[in-house]
Amino acid sequence: MKIVTCIAPVNIAVMKYWGKRDEDLILPINDSLSATLNTNFMCAKTTILASPDLKENKFWLNGKEESFEGKRLQNCLREVQRRAKDMNPDVLGWKIAICSENNFPTAAGLASSAAGYACLVSALAKLYNIEGEISDIARLGSGSACRSIYGGWVRWHKGELSCGEDSVARQVVPSSHWPEMRVLILVVNDKKKKDSSTSGMQRSVDTSDLLLYRSDKIVPKRMEEMITSIKNKDFHNFAKLTMQDSNQFHATCLDTYPPCVYMNDVSHSISGLVHKYNELFDENRVAYTFDAGPNACLYILEKDVEEFLSVVNYVFPPPEVDQVEYLTGMPLENRKIKNDLINSLNLTRNEPGLLKYIIHTNVGEGPTSTDDHLLSLNGIPLK
Amino acid sequence: MKIVTCIAPVNIAVMKYWGKRDEDLILPINDSLSATLNTNFMCAKTTILASPDLKENKFWLNGKEESFEGKRLQNCLREVQRRAKDMNPDVLGWKIAICSENNFPTAAGLASSAAGYACLVSALAKLYNIEGEISDIARLGSGSACRSIYGGWVRWHKGELSCGEDSVARQVVPSSHWPEMRVLILVVNDKKKKDSSTSGMQRSVDTSDLLLYRSDKIVPKRMEEMITSIKNKDFHNFAKLTMQDSNQFHATCLDTYPPCVYMNDVSHSISGLVHKYNELFDENRVAYTFDAGPNACLYILEKDVEEFLSVVNYVFPPPEVDQVEYLTGMPLENRKIKNDLINSLNLTRNEPGLLKYIIHTNVGEGPTSTDDHLLSLNGIPLK
Repeated sequence: MKIVTCIAPVNIAVMKYWGKRDEDLILPINDSLSATLNTNFMCAKTTILASPDLKENKFWLNGKEESFEGKRLQNCLREVQRRAKDMNPDVLGWKIAICSENNFPTAAGLASSAAGYACLVSALAKLYNIEGEISDIARLGSGSACRSIYGGWVRWHKGELSCGEDSVARQVVPSSHWPEMRVLILVVNDKKKKDSSTSGMQRSVDTSDLLLYRSDKIVPKRMEEMITSIKNKDFHNFAKLTMQDSNQFHATCLDTYPPCVYMNDVSHSISGLVHKYNELFDENRVAYTFDAGPNACLYILEKDVEEFLSVVNYVFPPPEVDQVEYLTGMPLENRKIKNDLINSLNLTRNEPGLLKYIIHTNVGEGPTSTDDHLLSLNGIPLK
Repeated sequence: MKIVTCIAPVNIAVMKYWGKRDEDLILPINDSLSATLNTNFMCAKTTILASPDLKENKFWLNGKEESFEGKRLQNCLREVQRRAKDMNPDVLGWKIAICSENNFPTAAGLASSAAGYACLVSALAKLYNIEGEISDIARLGSGSACRSIYGGWVRWHKGELSCGEDSVARQVVPSSHWPEMRVLILVVNDKKKKDSSTSGMQRSVDTSDLLLYRSDKIVPKRMEEMITSIKNKDFHNFAKLTMQDSNQFHATCLDTYPPCVYMNDVSHSISGLVHKYNELFDENRVAYTFDAGPNACLYILEKDVEEFLSVVNYVFPPPEVDQVEYLTGMPLENRKIKNDLINSLNLTRNEPGLLKYIIHTNVGEGPTSTDDHLLSLNGIPLK
């Protein structure tokens, strides 16, 4: 029998993926680019046991047994096994047990599938000893999962081939290139059930004229500018492009028929606060980006985190019910907002609790393996 | 001395005007199309007195004296007087007093400048006895005012000339063409100060790539489809195009840097309700459109008004404080929602008071004159 465990990161796109040209192979209509986040604070963890003693394939996700027959899981498994074929005929014949979990609340509405499929495919690749490119396999699970296969700043090339072979992720620069970069995730309290991004994305491709114009004409040019700004560590332009791209992605969602609406009043209020803050300093010090949900991901340099966070805490007071970990992740001094900043920004406070919690993290590395398994050697989840 | 009073209508665009190619002459980057609303329920009223006894020009707006030197007022006045030159040399030399008011609360955030400038220019044209096209003069006051110069369904042709002479409004069909059409205006309670549409529009032209694509490539085609649907009284397609165009306009606002956000959570919730209602019947029975603010304007046929309104009243209970006129405009039976509709639509009620009030109106005629003046013959406002 053989057991492997991997840990894989979340990634947050600064140039958005929205729209597939092939539904089955998950081939996108444009390139996208993200930062991979530190797995210390947010990650998926997956253990896979292969054993001649297992009677059937099993799959547990976040403590709950799930069907092993899911199309995306099957697509990833089939492709890893195909590439492994001549290497390990023994292991290939055994049944497997998969146990996966996220170390951050799924209730947060944070995209967990990217980390999850990157982790699954990394673990499968380790199990079956396959080498070489695996981001295209992770892509079969969830498009943006391919970017979580690498650390640092990662570009998903849309590729040209219809087989999808060239639709892979590549690292642009490692995390060490811009070590001052920090990420604040503002988790927004939201009652509304969100549209699934898979169906929303397809509806956008089918109905939004603006989306196709964006993917064909705007993204290629903006991508070059984005990469230049990252290579030059030019935060002002990086922030501008990041915010523009997030807004344009949500614009194409709104141009969809019927429209997909992911940002809410609190999201827009965070966006407004970021612009106000940047305008005060006459340079961009914070950039927001929003995925298919109301939560804000903020890119910000280390030097500005504590001051900006004092503004966020003033404008969005934490929930009044004591919550042990309202601010999680990298440790920070809890700085009080300066009075002159309240006045200069002309801030008004909201009622408490509009934000559920805040995660403070940074850019990190790709998947790693560990011996801290989630399954017993009998293939039973340890917890 | 000479005194004239005119009344002019509001209009609600179904193909939106957003973006100027000339700031001074107010020349738009694309054609737009609107319905002119019945002046019985919403209108501007303007009295102008010209007299040799007046010492100076005066201007009152909604009971408050305002500067006579405003650029837009001056532009309209200059152009009317230029065209009048040879007709009425006496009157032209006299000072004038202008008194204008809206019969609907400006606090509602409903675009009052279109009705206001259409009324001003109609009254000036009557005062100075000018004939022929005046929609291009109204346009100098406020772009969309040119559409309020005609009744029924009105198209503002963007024109090609740099002097603006061909940027005029034309009636597409009279109000009698589609007498069953009704309009519900859902005035949304909103605390947020809204972005000015003049500055937002300019920022969009300067920063949104999607806006230029929309105006060049999408609007011309959609305009032909819109006119066909109106001529054929094809409500289903009319509604689809209207909603798509509203959403696309707001998409370009969001693509602006920094973004302009006019719709709020309540606006999106109304939009969601309309789609749900239409999906239940598998045809469009209601269409929403949103201008540069959170209020919803709904186009709906007479036969469906009472039922849809029962749904709105269920989902958005009126404010609990007794308000005499929560529902104003054309009289309606206050019908109770049917239980099976609540179930079929899977409706949930919001807290009361998300809507401030509702106006029920229809498509009506252009400006008219009256002897019911707002000024005494001494040029003093009567109230």
